[in-house]
Amino acid sequence: MTSPLEPPAAATLSRSAQAGLADQLAERFAGPIRQRLLAPGARLPSVRECARRHGVSAHTVVAAYDQLLALGLVEARPQRGFFVRSRGAIAEAGAARDLPAAEVMRHPLPISATSLIRGMFQPPGARPMPGLGTLPAEWLDPMLLARALRQVTSAGQLETTALHYGDPAGDPRLRRALAARLGEHGIGAGVAQIVTSVGATHALDIVTRTLLRAGDRVLVDEPGWSVEYARLAALGLVILPVPRGDDGPDLAAMERLIKAQPAGAKPRLYVTVSVLHNPTGATLTPGAAHRLLQLATRHDLHVLEDDTYAHLAPPHLPRLAALDGLERTIYVSGFSKILVPNWRVGFLAAPERLIERLVDTKLLTTLTSPGLTEQALAHALESGQLRRHAERVVAKLDAARARVVKLAESHGCRFAATPRGLFGWVDAGCDTERLAEALLDRWLVAPGALFHADHRPTTLMRVNFATSQDAAFWRALVEAREQLATGIAPDAAAAQAPRSETA
Amino acid sequence: MTSPLEPPAAATLSRSAQAGLADQLAERFAGPIRQRLLAPGARLPSVRECARRHGVSAHTVVAAYDQLLALGLVEARPQRGFFVRSRGAIAEAGAARDLPAAEVMRHPLPISATSLIRGMFQPPGARPMPGLGTLPAEWLDPMLLARALRQVTSAGQLETTALHYGDPAGDPRLRRALAARLGEHGIGAGVAQIVTSVGATHALDIVTRTLLRAGDRVLVDEPGWSVEYARLAALGLVILPVPRGDDGPDLAAMERLIKAQPAGAKPRLYVTVSVLHNPTGATLTPGAAHRLLQLATRHDLHVLEDDTYAHLAPPHLPRLAALDGLERTIYVSGFSKILVPNWRVGFLAAPERLIERLVDTKLLTTLTSPGLTEQALAHALESGQLRRHAERVVAKLDAARARVVKLAESHGCRFAATPRGLFGWVDAGCDTERLAEALLDRWLVAPGALFHADHRPTTLMRVNFATSQDAAFWRALVEAREQLATGIAPDAAAAQAPRSETA
Repeated sequence: MTSPLEPPAAATLSRSAQAGLADQLAERFAGPIRQRLLAPGARLPSVRECARRHGVSAHTVVAAYDQLLALGLVEARPQRGFFVRSRGAIAEAGAARDLPAAEVMRHPLPISATSLIRGMFQPPGARPMPGLGTLPAEWLDPMLLARALRQVTSAGQLETTALHYGDPAGDPRLRRALAARLGEHGIGAGVAQIVTSVGATHALDIVTRTLLRAGDRVLVDEPGWSVEYARLAALGLVILPVPRGDDGPDLAAMERLIKAQPAGAKPRLYVTVSVLHNPTGATLTPGAAHRLLQLATRHDLHVLEDDTYAHLAPPHLPRLAALDGLERTIYVSGFSKILVPNWRVGFLAAPERLIERLVDTKLLTTLTSPGLTEQALAHALESGQLRRHAERVVAKLDAARARVVKLAESHGCRFAATPRGLFGWVDAGCDTERLAEALLDRWLVAPGALFHADHRPTTLMRVNFATSQDAAFWRALVEAREQLATGIAPDAAAAQAPRSETA
Repeated sequence: MTSPLEPPAAATLSRSAQAGLADQLAERFAGPIRQRLLAPGARLPSVRECARRHGVSAHTVVAAYDQLLALGLVEARPQRGFFVRSRGAIAEAGAARDLPAAEVMRHPLPISATSLIRGMFQPPGARPMPGLGTLPAEWLDPMLLARALRQVTSAGQLETTALHYGDPAGDPRLRRALAARLGEHGIGAGVAQIVTSVGATHALDIVTRTLLRAGDRVLVDEPGWSVEYARLAALGLVILPVPRGDDGPDLAAMERLIKAQPAGAKPRLYVTVSVLHNPTGATLTPGAAHRLLQLATRHDLHVLEDDTYAHLAPPHLPRLAALDGLERTIYVSGFSKILVPNWRVGFLAAPERLIERLVDTKLLTTLTSPGLTEQALAHALESGQLRRHAERVVAKLDAARARVVKLAESHGCRFAATPRGLFGWVDAGCDTERLAEALLDRWLVAPGALFHADHRPTTLMRVNFATSQDAAFWRALVEAREQLATGIAPDAAAAQAPRSETA
């Protein structure tokens, strides 16, 4: 586990550092492998290529790769090069003692999904990475929260409410502030219809655990957020992907999919990001929203509307919950995209008849949610400070998006969806998994395969407009694409990797 | 949902209040029914009995019961009296609109379990209730947390760490402080073996979701904490109860139970409270702990040690994790029993080989846990303030226990387990579910049936030593027991309930 207190990975190896160059280079790979930012089976660059990139001798690279072999983190395949070892093999290498059989991995989570989240927990000051899902730390406003917190912990306030036994549904003051905010989106939710959570992820978990059980089928957008797929799969649910276009989901395909399921095993829930969809940035049109809700009525579906990007979108965009009047829609949102992620406040708004069961699930998963952070957030909402901060972030993001669109297009990339919000869905012109692999020691890339339930290869990738502004990234992409296009170059280079004595 | 800002239920009805006596009396029942503190099917006191208890006329009671009928909260059964309606019926009564079929309850959580938790969220100042699971608010020390929080939010501190992207495993400073504290219990856990969570409940949820999947069998203590049963059942797990004695679990019974399961469906996990077990207060002896771990090795079980009551117990008591060296034991604890529950910080300590998967599950359920509250807790631990507070609480609890033991015994009750820690396991000499029903409008009682997986009737009940010191409770208990013993009294009284026009 990387501590946030560790220094960020330097862009170049340091010749004056205490650790030798080989040690530094080995650590450059070892860290990401242990954190699983490098997937098992990923190939390390050839010795020659690695030496060129890092400006060191082939001898230094061989020494570094030997260290990785000795640590059991990589394996050498004759004539092919060095590859990241499987998790099981790595765990074994790390534990000398006997492992009980119960340790056998029963829920292998898709490594790719959690890798991306793990990538979010970069040490402060680390270089922005195009594959990340959040805003850079320096775009956020920690003092906004600090001020709000001082406000609610000032004398007299603290003892009466924030530190007392909480309401299981969440802090009443925050729920009032959220109801007011939902009103701006046209969603008429009473305070009694709102339940707070430990971030939006927790709210999504509460809703799915309340409405579904293992073995149930659930409709999701595809492409979609891979961590959401992983979460649903970990609950034992069967994922039914619905193609998501620029205007909304492909309703004909959704209906065919529903009809194809055996009677008694029909999906009861559709999970969707209606506004600034991840990864495409697409937003449901009002017409598509209306037709979607008609389909939901016909097939008796609940719709779980994930509005994680609410703060980055104009308030007037159509929400399903607004059209539907929270009849069969459950709305989830949070503040991780606009405040620091580890403030961890999210919420859901649901039909009143479901609230009691949703609160029960919350009670069984985390009992309550922390009252103090909820009160501080309520203050930030009420005072208008959060709104002003969001406006500043949106303006900054608009400028970043304009810059990244130019950079991407001038480096031979094409946008597969209209650029909007935080993410661009970009055709890189080559298999993006191989691209991610080629760039792995310098740039974290989110290949399109991660956003498909079946992880199929694709030339698409997701870029974060806020963290893809470095022209060096786009130059490296072009270079890697050219290498991949020659077809034989990377393999040929890898074949030159030395056989190690420790292999 | 009851807001914590609502005034506490008064002990007696107020003749000067704006609402009439009938309205007040109706609300005395309506609140708990809506919060499900009164289970469906529970019988309301007879009109005569209710009038006597509350010092009002039979006419007032009839008017109050009529209101409850009109609200759809109770039903009248000819010749038998008034009964709390089922949840479905109540939900229907509350919602005029058509409900989609998907709303059909697919995971009916045991009402009894969540009622008890809901009872924890009493408004500040409410009367202590014997059935509660936590310390009274006035025993806690909110200023301890307030001071710690001011410390970590003071200038310079805030921006650097607490508000930055967190470490997925939790705040490093807190994890260091927890490692030191575990050392005092003889548990040698490295910082890398500790993962923080949103309270101990969340840690238990993370562990079970990582190790088990729907349909798996899991061994639990019986009697045991009903909310834990409910949590496991909601995950689709099959509960195998192991009788828990004063020294530890019945190992012969446990082994028989394991052997009785079909091959390929053997349990892989045993969940237990080793120290100050809920509800009996019993603590594992060192010998029992050793034999239990031998059995776990023989049958390749993981042991999930829930040490929720750690702060109320002497540090020298034997922990399974200490004997086992965290080889197959996963240790979980939190601070809800000693600090305010909605501070919500818990943690787990686990074998290193499991940590990565546990962190993955945490990421998928809540992403991270709030950094600021974790830092404040770290401060409270490091400064020794938490320890001194716990010592004061333990001394207070010792005095309360002595008083309650005397009260219970002088009112004809017997302790089924040696009184220790927070809970007494008391034989009340009558069916405690009927007792709870008889006392329902005055005292919240935790009947023994709630602590058995099959909810079988029992004369045992759990009392909280901190909240059972009112002699009036014990007098009411004796009175109700005598009424129940006459056999016909309550039924006969109920038969006199009037037939209502609205029924």
